[in-house]
Amino acid sequence: MPKRWHLSEFGLAHLACVEVDPVPPGPGEVRLRMRAVSLNYRDLLMVRGHYDPRVPRPLVPCSDGVGVVEAVGPGVEARPGERRIPIFAQGWLAGPPRAEHLRTTLGGPLPGTLQTHLVVPYAATVPAPTGLSDAEAATLPCAGVTAWHALEACGVTAGSTVATLGTGGVSIFALQLARAMGARVAITSSSPAKLDRARALGAEHTVDYRATPDWGREIARWAGDSGVDAVIEVGGAGTIGESLRAVRVGGTLALIGVLDGGAGDVPLVKALMRSVRIQGVLVGSRDHFEALSKVVTSSGIRPVVDRVFPFDEAPMAFEHLASGAHFGKVVVTLPEDA
Amino acid sequence: MPKRWHLSEFGLAHLACVEVDPVPPGPGEVRLRMRAVSLNYRDLLMVRGHYDPRVPRPLVPCSDGVGVVEAVGPGVEARPGERRIPIFAQGWLAGPPRAEHLRTTLGGPLPGTLQTHLVVPYAATVPAPTGLSDAEAATLPCAGVTAWHALEACGVTAGSTVATLGTGGVSIFALQLARAMGARVAITSSSPAKLDRARALGAEHTVDYRATPDWGREIARWAGDSGVDAVIEVGGAGTIGESLRAVRVGGTLALIGVLDGGAGDVPLVKALMRSVRIQGVLVGSRDHFEALSKVVTSSGIRPVVDRVFPFDEAPMAFEHLASGAHFGKVVVTLPEDA
Amino acid sequence: MPKRWHLSEFGLAHLACVEVDPVPPGPGEVRLRMRAVSLNYRDLLMVRGHYDPRVPRPLVPCSDGVGVVEAVGPGVEARPGERRIPIFAQGWLAGPPRAEHLRTTLGGPLPGTLQTHLVVPYAATVPAPTGLSDAEAATLPCAGVTAWHALEACGVTAGSTVATLGTGGVSIFALQLARAMGARVAITSSSPAKLDRARALGAEHTVDYRATPDWGREIARWAGDSGVDAVIEVGGAGTIGESLRAVRVGGTLALIGVLDGGAGDVPLVKALMRSVRIQGVLVGSRDHFEALSKVVTSSGIRPVVDRVFPFDEAPMAFEHLASGAHFGKVVVTLPEDA
Amino acid sequence: MPKRWHLSEFGLAHLACVEVDPVPPGPGEVRLRMRAVSLNYRDLLMVRGHYDPRVPRPLVPCSDGVGVVEAVGPGVEARPGERRIPIFAQGWLAGPPRAEHLRTTLGGPLPGTLQTHLVVPYAATVPAPTGLSDAEAATLPCAGVTAWHALEACGVTAGSTVATLGTGGVSIFALQLARAMGARVAITSSSPAKLDRARALGAEHTVDYRATPDWGREIARWAGDSGVDAVIEVGGAGTIGESLRAVRVGGTLALIGVLDGGAGDVPLVKALMRSVRIQGVLVGSRDHFEALSKVVTSSGIRPVVDRVFPFDEAPMAFEHLASGAHFGKVVVTLPEDA
Repeated sequence: MPKRWHLSEFGLAHLACVEVDPVPPGPGEVRLRMRAVSLNYRDLLMVRGHYDPRVPRPLVPCSDGVGVVEAVGPGVEARPGERRIPIFAQGWLAGPPRAEHLRTTLGGPLPGTLQTHLVVPYAATVPAPTGLSDAEAATLPCAGVTAWHALEACGVTAGSTVATLGTGGVSIFALQLARAMGARVAITSSSPAKLDRARALGAEHTVDYRATPDWGREIARWAGDSGVDAVIEVGGAGTIGESLRAVRVGGTLALIGVLDGGAGDVPLVKALMRSVRIQGVLVGSRDHFEALSKVVTSSGIRPVVDRVFPFDEAPMAFEHLASGAHFGKVVVTLPEDA
Repeated sequence: MPKRWHLSEFGLAHLACVEVDPVPPGPGEVRLRMRAVSLNYRDLLMVRGHYDPRVPRPLVPCSDGVGVVEAVGPGVEARPGERRIPIFAQGWLAGPPRAEHLRTTLGGPLPGTLQTHLVVPYAATVPAPTGLSDAEAATLPCAGVTAWHALEACGVTAGSTVATLGTGGVSIFALQLARAMGARVAITSSSPAKLDRARALGAEHTVDYRATPDWGREIARWAGDSGVDAVIEVGGAGTIGESLRAVRVGGTLALIGVLDGGAGDVPLVKALMRSVRIQGVLVGSRDHFEALSKVVTSSGIRPVVDRVFPFDEAPMAFEHLASGAHFGKVVVTLPEDA
Repeated sequence: MPKRWHLSEFGLAHLACVEVDPVPPGPGEVRLRMRAVSLNYRDLLMVRGHYDPRVPRPLVPCSDGVGVVEAVGPGVEARPGERRIPIFAQGWLAGPPRAEHLRTTLGGPLPGTLQTHLVVPYAATVPAPTGLSDAEAATLPCAGVTAWHALEACGVTAGSTVATLGTGGVSIFALQLARAMGARVAITSSSPAKLDRARALGAEHTVDYRATPDWGREIARWAGDSGVDAVIEVGGAGTIGESLRAVRVGGTLALIGVLDGGAGDVPLVKALMRSVRIQGVLVGSRDHFEALSKVVTSSGIRPVVDRVFPFDEAPMAFEHLASGAHFGKVVVTLPEDA
Repeated sequence: MPKRWHLSEFGLAHLACVEVDPVPPGPGEVRLRMRAVSLNYRDLLMVRGHYDPRVPRPLVPCSDGVGVVEAVGPGVEARPGERRIPIFAQGWLAGPPRAEHLRTTLGGPLPGTLQTHLVVPYAATVPAPTGLSDAEAATLPCAGVTAWHALEACGVTAGSTVATLGTGGVSIFALQLARAMGARVAITSSSPAKLDRARALGAEHTVDYRATPDWGREIARWAGDSGVDAVIEVGGAGTIGESLRAVRVGGTLALIGVLDGGAGDVPLVKALMRSVRIQGVLVGSRDHFEALSKVVTSSGIRPVVDRVFPFDEAPMAFEHLASGAHFGKVVVTLPEDA
């Protein structure tokens, strides 16, 4: 019997695992037997009701995951057994984003991936890169695609300098991908142990932002010229001031996460005076995903999985994410015969 | 005897007109007999000491103007009598901006245009478009180039929708240039009379921002889709919240002026959620200027000169600019035989 | 009873009008009652078997047209009565072209528009711009979208210089659109009368290529600098040599039509020495079409319809196109109550 | 006493080594004591009179080289002893190319690098990357910059597929740089031994074009999709047909060399039908060079020097280049105390 976690009221305590009737795939659709689901900070905010208080409930959380095709709807040329990953914004296949694309995201408003069986349009999935485990493949749709899209939007290439903030999922992907692109990377964290791990993944320069509160200046000094070419900004108003110190004249700041609710004092005059570009990056299209998959495959990147929880213990995965102790991605796996 | 206005201490009251020795042009340089000088808000901030308190003094203010070649240095192929306009950032000829370019701006740190004779590298000047009066030609380097660069950076083209804020120099240029590009324009002001004038210049939609404090939403409604393609943002933190409401998903906000000192509450989450690009635009290169000149010539645009003051009354020109009563540009002209 | 023109064997003489059974729209589809169909040179080549000898037959020719929604399939939110235009490459909605998109073009390999009733996916149609007649609206999908895409790919903007070759459908659209973008246009023809008409549509410079066989040089001279920013190249090997003389260093040549079969002596060294970009342009995506529609609406462009034939006389429309006597588009119209 | 190789009449036999008077650097200039000079195919064509029959003579050949600052002109902030590389087109510092830039190339029309002492504007030089020998550093200006510019113009990034033709200087740089960018590379040659060396430098797929005359199809098959993202085309009309088979729909062909004089049968219809972009790439600007230097330094690329000749035997270096036996660059070195 298919099962899913859902939420009738906001709050982690209200996450409940329920049994549901099987749904057949319609025209153009496939049904995936889910193998692994990966958590994003967005999912946590969503569950807490901080992301979008008007999201339809009961909500099936999570947007990321990988599954195996087990049923194929009319008009679909898919092989049962194919391992596919649903894309985050189901309607955004190619080209620039549109308002209507952003209303088709999994895990709110659309039902998410935290279920044993998921029915989605086949065109809104991509093949899972071979060579990745289920847990690894599940981490790509949000954090991986976002990091790739951000680096691309910043024009990062070989020889570029990139700063990533912290060691969450997007930041670690950005580190790995920037290295695969031949860029040099600086990274911040308050944990020397995490900075060590980042160095092992290829970070050239690491900054403890507690020990060095003016880390922006420090990163600019490391980069030379007037600063780094690109900052992968995941902090919002709390970090953007230093990020604008870190970036070079004419550089780009990819605005990704806004941890603190999003409003706050932003030194706009600095952005202006340095001709900086601040680019809001909201995950990406299927085209972005396919480009990411090529990079992951050709460079041999293995997504960093922090910890894996079984499907039945999904709430504990959320708690682990909330603790901030992770380095890389938190994943939930499902049994093959569930 | 050459004369110039200069400033030993900050404050409009300290502007003084002094006689100076003539300077011969060096290798690669020309000396221009200035014909007209145009004021920017930046010049006012500079004089007041609000722009850059460490600017070298005595400072000759102003970055914009037009002159006639009257002396030619070694190695320069210029004709005496050519009408030339010095570019704002003397070292920025082409390509993206660099930190070192931004240290070569006229009117601070380099001596400005508010003088009867100006010696500059010939390569740091462009021909004045034929068909413009001296007063009109003088308005191009800062406000005109900024507006063109901003529209180009926003990807504005025929059929695009553009919002410009207020009726200062950059905004009026942006209106005229966007119309020449085949774009549709909305404009804001608190003065119905100014909105009437803007409509006569081609604005399709006008909004009184006092009567309509949520003008961002109103402009988005006019544009259709999810908002305008581009906002020419000259206000800073005081307006950026509404600008982010006006712009469509995936649109661009050209950040140009920061009237209020530049820091303030900015709804970053909105920029993120709508995948908006915020692009700091600091005037532009010689290449930008040459492209502007082509548009001005081919489209027959006449820069809007609000009021002309004689050279000897330059301080009154600053006061007029400070009053905010202007529509378009404030200009100082010089006698031909001074 | 629905009717369509089809072709069992190549050759205009084999075009036959046959009655067919009505087809209901499937999921995601609409059925259009066609109002007007427009011919392209591609359609003529296709009918003659010169375009793609392996195209499936019987072939319904033509890719362009406009119709009215008369039946709506499951899952489609369309209003009966809406006036819609099918897009050329039914699978190319946004982003860059892919091989699979180019296998979904109407009029070969997919059945074309020269029929009274057409069933297409609703997502593969766009609204007809209000203000255009049926005959005018029918001309947009191939010639209009191609011209727009080409100008955009060439980076044409206000003040740019553009050369268009001849007075066929794409060239006249390019002239009109480039003017709407604020660009300056030169055009060639061997007919002084056609050059007069082009001048009336806004061409600034006209060249009789018979009287001036080195028209490339002549156009470069007119443009100044080292040539025009963009050439809309529709002739192929027969004209590309002169086109490469007309274009400036660093300019772009949009390669659109290849009248003569496509191979021939091309002075590649000239392309290299002048850093020219030659961009193959194959119509465009739905996104390109929507951008075109905005320009057509906001600028008030009226497509130039050369001559209109009734549906029953479609073969005469092909003959007229083949004669080369046209200026603008050749159109077939259908009765409202057919 | 300074010496230089020069050419009064075309033909390798007329290369003569002559003594000249020392020239002091003028304002803005430096004098370099040359350390190494690298040869390009262009230099060979130039010497033979096949490149530009109107080039001023006596001509000092070669555009590439590295030297040490030994005299500094007025107004230049350079340290004697700095190792600098003159840029190929002395007037092209940034931004897109202009006709006037292309008239400032070393080794024709301007005197070239094949001399013991070279006076150039300091602004027209870049620092030699530390970590490279003189011979290695000398290879960058033409072949290295061209390869970088081409890859960038093609939008190559991590995960891209690139085809390079042959094993000359540009092709080998393109292989190394594409690898540093995280791209996958296929390469052609008629020599199995050279293909082995290319594989050692990171080529994933190698094709013997004699054994596989339809190598374009073979490379497309390897790349998957409809072909490679980019072809670095150095052959001209003799190879462009296969290159157009190798490239994917919407891909780019960087047109660099035209070995055979440049005109020839080009299947334009294929370029059109596959929406291919053919981009003429003529070396690059100072900005391109600085970006290249960053990549070389950060990725540890060592330019491939095929063979080194002493200054006095420069004609033998030309003969070696003409033989086609080389893999990578042919270099002439100068004694430190010459």
